[in-house]
Amino acid sequence: MNKVVKAAICQMQVVAEKAANLAKAGQMIHAASKQAQLVILPEIFNAPYQTDRLAQNAEPIPGPTTEFLAAQARENQVLLIGGSIAEINADGIIYNTCCVFDETGKLIGRHRKLHLFDINIPSKIVFKESDVFSAGDRLDIISHNGINFAVLICYDIRFPELARKAALAGAQMLVVPAAFNMTTGSAHWELLMRTRAIDNQLFVIAASPARNPQSSYQVWGHSIAVDPWGRIISQGTTEEDIIYADLDLSLLDKVRRELPVLKNRRPELY
Amino acid sequence: MNKVVKAAICQMQVVAEKAANLAKAGQMIHAASKQAQLVILPEIFNAPYQTDRLAQNAEPIPGPTTEFLAAQARENQVLLIGGSIAEINADGIIYNTCCVFDETGKLIGRHRKLHLFDINIPSKIVFKESDVFSAGDRLDIISHNGINFAVLICYDIRFPELARKAALAGAQMLVVPAAFNMTTGSAHWELLMRTRAIDNQLFVIAASPARNPQSSYQVWGHSIAVDPWGRIISQGTTEEDIIYADLDLSLLDKVRRELPVLKNRRPELY
Repeated sequence: MNKVVKAAICQMQVVAEKAANLAKAGQMIHAASKQAQLVILPEIFNAPYQTDRLAQNAEPIPGPTTEFLAAQARENQVLLIGGSIAEINADGIIYNTCCVFDETGKLIGRHRKLHLFDINIPSKIVFKESDVFSAGDRLDIISHNGINFAVLICYDIRFPELARKAALAGAQMLVVPAAFNMTTGSAHWELLMRTRAIDNQLFVIAASPARNPQSSYQVWGHSIAVDPWGRIISQGTTEEDIIYADLDLSLLDKVRRELPVLKNRRPELY
Repeated sequence: MNKVVKAAICQMQVVAEKAANLAKAGQMIHAASKQAQLVILPEIFNAPYQTDRLAQNAEPIPGPTTEFLAAQARENQVLLIGGSIAEINADGIIYNTCCVFDETGKLIGRHRKLHLFDINIPSKIVFKESDVFSAGDRLDIISHNGINFAVLICYDIRFPELARKAALAGAQMLVVPAAFNMTTGSAHWELLMRTRAIDNQLFVIAASPARNPQSSYQVWGHSIAVDPWGRIISQGTTEEDIIYADLDLSLLDKVRRELPVLKNRRPELY
């Protein structure tokens, strides 16, 4: 990739019907591709994020949604980080899975969410993802056109160990399809994304759906791109929108040279 | 300790003369003790934070400064987290060391800074702590009156592994004597303190000196106390002041029950 990567986050409003979600994703990917080389969708972009709906919307990989994404990547000539979908495997086990497609439509990476989001704040947010999903068991670094990145899905970003593991394995960017809610989003979304970037001196790009008043699960929105010094490059609102961010990869070397945090670790102590 | 711990951060202006710094610390500890049980001083509170001055101000432990702190703790009946000083040991090795004294003046804990701050951002901030200091080699949990905490000194807070280690070892609070500068302070101070609290669901209390226009090293100030949900309990400005914070320890259980991040870790993956 060029020294400056043009990224676009499709902060799409997810609705009840899968076909409508795929159509919307397609429109936004196409629009984004006119300016961006790298396009990102949010977590569970093809179906409502409700535990009672996730299983029925689960698909194998390859399956209709991932075939659609592969075609979108190819037709629009973008590196597509396809948010996530409920993936059902041959044994009937369901994962929250992100697929990554290159400009030829080839599946070049897959991340199954490693940490399942079970929260119980009475009268604010109660959600138990582990009722439906099983957790993945590996973190991969995906390399494409000279940029190395890891995908973390939503709750995964709360675990600094995982972001650190990605950085030490060479990640220059964390891509985070997510769907924080109103409670955790207002309290933590921006802080977590910025501090993971600061700690690991890499880019963090987090994609949320847009707010949908019809949904049972109200998302925070505010998709965000952060640079390796923790500065916000761009951030969305709660509305459906494409958020563009120019990622100047030369910042990686600059920040890591000026404040050599990764070199100053004391791994023998942790 | 009570369920609500009354803490006070003495954001003192550090000047060139050690005697003046000790006198100022004594005045502020005494004033703080009228409301607080737990009193915290900033990093290198007894001398200028300049590499060419640190060695000449180094002292053994016990030594004049720690004897002074022990007396302050005893006379004012507070748990005193004595910021840090340049400690010189019998072999002439110099550390950046925090001593903790209980209400009887007994030394109950000591932390030698584990990560030395070497930064090189031309025209903004160039500082090489490792020219003077050697690094410590252990992290302890200090327990007193039913509260468990760890001391991290300044740059130590940039390493999420260390904060996590403290939390997993039972820390309910991180106490951080620090002296961030204008460049890193404005960019990272609040984000780091809040996100360490969020990630580890504990209190973070960070003490900075006040700004002193005469100093070669300009500190950020903004001493801060954060709760386990990442909310700012109180925060200072750049001026000399005592910043009070009531720490409601019942929040620890509440937050950890509602969003069980520490239980949801996948240590086999990291």
